[in-house]
Amino acid sequence: MEKMRNKITNALSDFLFEYETPRQVLVRNRRVGVVCRLIQLGVLGYIIGWVFIYEKGYQSTDTAISTTLTKMKGVGYTNVDGMEKIWDVADYVFPPQGDASFVVMTNYIITEGQSLGKCPELPGKHNCTKNADCEGGSYKRTGHGTMTGVCNDTTKTCEVQAWCPVENDHHIPDPPLLLSAENFTLFIKNSVTFPLFGITRSNLVEGIDSKYISKCLYHPETAPLCPIFSLGDIVRISGFNFETIAKVGGAIGIVVDWLCNFDLDVRHCKPEYSFHGLYRNPDETDKFRASVGYNFRYARHYIENGVQKRTLFKAFGIRIEVITHSLARKFDIIPTLTAIGSGVGIFGVATVVCDLVLLYLLPKREFYKNMKFKYTETQNQVWSSSRPGLAPSLVQTILHYYTGY
Amino acid sequence: MEKMRNKITNALSDFLFEYETPRQVLVRNRRVGVVCRLIQLGVLGYIIGWVFIYEKGYQSTDTAISTTLTKMKGVGYTNVDGMEKIWDVADYVFPPQGDASFVVMTNYIITEGQSLGKCPELPGKHNCTKNADCEGGSYKRTGHGTMTGVCNDTTKTCEVQAWCPVENDHHIPDPPLLLSAENFTLFIKNSVTFPLFGITRSNLVEGIDSKYISKCLYHPETAPLCPIFSLGDIVRISGFNFETIAKVGGAIGIVVDWLCNFDLDVRHCKPEYSFHGLYRNPDETDKFRASVGYNFRYARHYIENGVQKRTLFKAFGIRIEVITHSLARKFDIIPTLTAIGSGVGIFGVATVVCDLVLLYLLPKREFYKNMKFKYTETQNQVWSSSRPGLAPSLVQTILHYYTGY
Amino acid sequence: MEKMRNKITNALSDFLFEYETPRQVLVRNRRVGVVCRLIQLGVLGYIIGWVFIYEKGYQSTDTAISTTLTKMKGVGYTNVDGMEKIWDVADYVFPPQGDASFVVMTNYIITEGQSLGKCPELPGKHNCTKNADCEGGSYKRTGHGTMTGVCNDTTKTCEVQAWCPVENDHHIPDPPLLLSAENFTLFIKNSVTFPLFGITRSNLVEGIDSKYISKCLYHPETAPLCPIFSLGDIVRISGFNFETIAKVGGAIGIVVDWLCNFDLDVRHCKPEYSFHGLYRNPDETDKFRASVGYNFRYARHYIENGVQKRTLFKAFGIRIEVITHSLARKFDIIPTLTAIGSGVGIFGVATVVCDLVLLYLLPKREFYKNMKFKYTETQNQVWSSSRPGLAPSLVQTILHYYTGY
Repeated sequence: MEKMRNKITNALSDFLFEYETPRQVLVRNRRVGVVCRLIQLGVLGYIIGWVFIYEKGYQSTDTAISTTLTKMKGVGYTNVDGMEKIWDVADYVFPPQGDASFVVMTNYIITEGQSLGKCPELPGKHNCTKNADCEGGSYKRTGHGTMTGVCNDTTKTCEVQAWCPVENDHHIPDPPLLLSAENFTLFIKNSVTFPLFGITRSNLVEGIDSKYISKCLYHPETAPLCPIFSLGDIVRISGFNFETIAKVGGAIGIVVDWLCNFDLDVRHCKPEYSFHGLYRNPDETDKFRASVGYNFRYARHYIENGVQKRTLFKAFGIRIEVITHSLARKFDIIPTLTAIGSGVGIFGVATVVCDLVLLYLLPKREFYKNMKFKYTETQNQVWSSSRPGLAPSLVQTILHYYTGY
Repeated sequence: MEKMRNKITNALSDFLFEYETPRQVLVRNRRVGVVCRLIQLGVLGYIIGWVFIYEKGYQSTDTAISTTLTKMKGVGYTNVDGMEKIWDVADYVFPPQGDASFVVMTNYIITEGQSLGKCPELPGKHNCTKNADCEGGSYKRTGHGTMTGVCNDTTKTCEVQAWCPVENDHHIPDPPLLLSAENFTLFIKNSVTFPLFGITRSNLVEGIDSKYISKCLYHPETAPLCPIFSLGDIVRISGFNFETIAKVGGAIGIVVDWLCNFDLDVRHCKPEYSFHGLYRNPDETDKFRASVGYNFRYARHYIENGVQKRTLFKAFGIRIEVITHSLARKFDIIPTLTAIGSGVGIFGVATVVCDLVLLYLLPKREFYKNMKFKYTETQNQVWSSSRPGLAPSLVQTILHYYTGY
Repeated sequence: MEKMRNKITNALSDFLFEYETPRQVLVRNRRVGVVCRLIQLGVLGYIIGWVFIYEKGYQSTDTAISTTLTKMKGVGYTNVDGMEKIWDVADYVFPPQGDASFVVMTNYIITEGQSLGKCPELPGKHNCTKNADCEGGSYKRTGHGTMTGVCNDTTKTCEVQAWCPVENDHHIPDPPLLLSAENFTLFIKNSVTFPLFGITRSNLVEGIDSKYISKCLYHPETAPLCPIFSLGDIVRISGFNFETIAKVGGAIGIVVDWLCNFDLDVRHCKPEYSFHGLYRNPDETDKFRASVGYNFRYARHYIENGVQKRTLFKAFGIRIEVITHSLARKFDIIPTLTAIGSGVGIFGVATVVCDLVLLYLLPKREFYKNMKFKYTETQNQVWSSSRPGLAPSLVQTILHYYTGY
């Protein structure tokens, strides 16, 4: 019992008071030495220069939860055939409540006073010569309603049961009716929260107070933090021609980019705005020409003299999507140590290469082999240490380095 | 001074022209050797086979910024009590502007000509026998308005101040009124940008040009890249019965899956579409039966003879959410070297196991211990190298391997 | 030929039946031993305690694809100048179809019966004394329409072509008209899918069945899983005063937090709800005071006696954004082995420190150097092992440890 306890105490004190360190051969050879040091330097440079400084491998990263609020301002004026109309926010923004994705109507085809009934289709796709050409009850993919089976004699098109008269969208108003949309302004309120770091930032950063906002207008160089944008600027910076996109519509992404380094003061975490045409077509000859064309239909329903009617709009417009892109970084012990730890592993590669040179290429390789290796003899296999030539094969040499020993 | 400089030069040339390599014992023992090689082979297989080839550990990953545009097409026809109606996109899509999430109305309960006033509640939940049953000024959670304190004699329900007459949604039209919605088509424009790799892709990939689109219809096998979907197909592939979901409504997710490997040509980066019923109930007996039921109310307001009125719709429909899921991969030096580096570390485990066998289990263990270890004696503790039996404890052996030495 | 084959067989059997293990010096020195063991213990504690247990480094993580459906319930009652009105879901929710982001109108400024025409601007910002003050054809940023060039004598403001009469929003109704919105309830259906793990969860978790939902109301402590929320509770938990936010509007984020550990039963994966005021202003003196103020304009168009008219609403309300935040974890072999592998690398640091002490600080350092290092002499450079004092420089010692040898 006493003996047992003694033994354990001894083992423990042995364990505590000693440590092991590997025995090394210090190879003094100019060529191998220089090769080895250069490789080691390269690895060190990679770990410190690239992984740590360039890629900031000592930081952990997080993406944000973001919310966006938008508000358009501006009044548009149209004059169609002497009929003057005023368009304000309640009329040209869809949806009205200020979502991150919305449409500013810039052109439209209006079909007023539609009611349910029977009328001939538009000339063009639905031509007929006799009633048999118009199968009753069925409808065509591009048609406006169910065919009644009658071929209209005047228009030479099938009669349909539909909202009559049917919309005629053969001609898109040019110039666009609401060309004045160029001067409309967009106010963006954007907020990001990085849950990992517990930090919330708004695009109304320090210095962007209500006084500044009341006067400023975004400009890439002179006012890069002003959250008020002119629609014309947005379109132009995206690479579009305003009149073209206003006429046939288009989609634009406003990217609010938050690249934050929370090792610095949180005040340096500021948004950057960029503008891109969306849905580009890869087949187009000019890869960077943004594709245009965006429209949708909506209707205003009303009752007139007891009859249900509607005014149909085919609206062309600029669809804006405010996209938040975020990436925050902050020092963290785990990625730091992981980078160091795996760096240590890679470091070993240098010695592998040098040993290959030393043990296989140098004239004095037998001498080095004897310095480095010590051979054991067992009862089954008797080897003499005078047969070093057979021993460590190439594969073996590479492998034993990867074991870390 | 001269001496100092000499010394530094010497140290530097020492450092440059030499390198150190660990001294090794080459243990020749069949059993231990085989065990060791097998473990090493396993680790090597894991690193190359799994981490590198299967999990593509040599690549860095990125998720995309995505935008989606939708457009429905098709005309619906209803005939309620001889009253024929035509429904086009402007009438059955909510919201109209082509968002990634929208509703196609397939059934509805209409309450026409509501105006503000006093009327009795629906029979059922609000029954009363005398005025005292209807507390004036208060309202019930399921009620349509504020109670006036009067019990209607005819209907035996409380009178409320509300939009009158109140909606009666006891009976849902069956079959659904807009069953023809099955033939409506949905066009999806989806675009992804991988900011890390600077690559933008659209679901109108190479070969999907306007000519193809004008004719194609999505089919999982024959036309997996056609961006035009029949509503009936979407519902069926999601596992629903169209008539059921058209009657009571439901939610369907269309997942556009971008799994891209940018080490290959960018043309191989193509979307895959899949369709899922949303909001399944885990309590249901059949875990894979999708839950149905989706409706919302909207109103069309109008003025008739100076009186403000509205037509209320309880709309049942298919709520479609286009969800973009993306993951792109590309070769990157940092994950590659991190994987190698940490693989090197794991490799060391093989030698630990073999040494345990060698130093504790073999009959000739004392011999191997003497081969491997060299003991130092210090003035405080005098040890003789003839007492190797006490030395390296088990814990110590494991530990000293994890030190990498 | 025979000889060649023999040689290869020999090399292969050599490779299979032997393995190499590094030779070590077992340094018996109390001080260095203790330092070394403590460092090793620290590293071991870090790897096991922090990386594995605290940060769960043995698990891979995934974020979810989420979808959200909302439904408001409740009836509001307003009495403005004796005119009683009832507001139900179809009237106060924007948009109506139950999106994750929507607005509950709580206050409004109504401008009824607007038609297109000419009328003077509101007194205040657009004052004039003579026609020349009002440049015809132009319009002001805060104006309601295009100026006609006439200064109205009565109001002393510029006449504009606009929707007339122009809206007067100088006075916001106080108390808010729809203060009863406090009792409205919100039902949230939220679903998350973790594509990496193939698991889908709904916020209607086990036990939250339709029977429970019909009666429950969310409470942070007593009913944390009930998916029905009172609007008043939401506002209060977010730190707002309901009357203030109902009057001028505000934005609130409802975060549905899914932190799931799929190593446990999937039933433990439950959502947590939290409520935050959005768009806080960092410039405000009280950093935690949520900023208020949210409004938008919408119009109801109608035709009266053949004239197109509209009723304009400036709606103040509570904008609610249901935000899903998710992070799931599950055991995975790759992060586990990566953590171990890089941990092994870090472990080596302990020995570096101890060797620095051993070889440079101890009185018997020359003795230890001779124990640890073996020097090779080559023909170009003759070194005597009696000159160990010059050899291993400090830099070299550090470096050769990072090589793993």
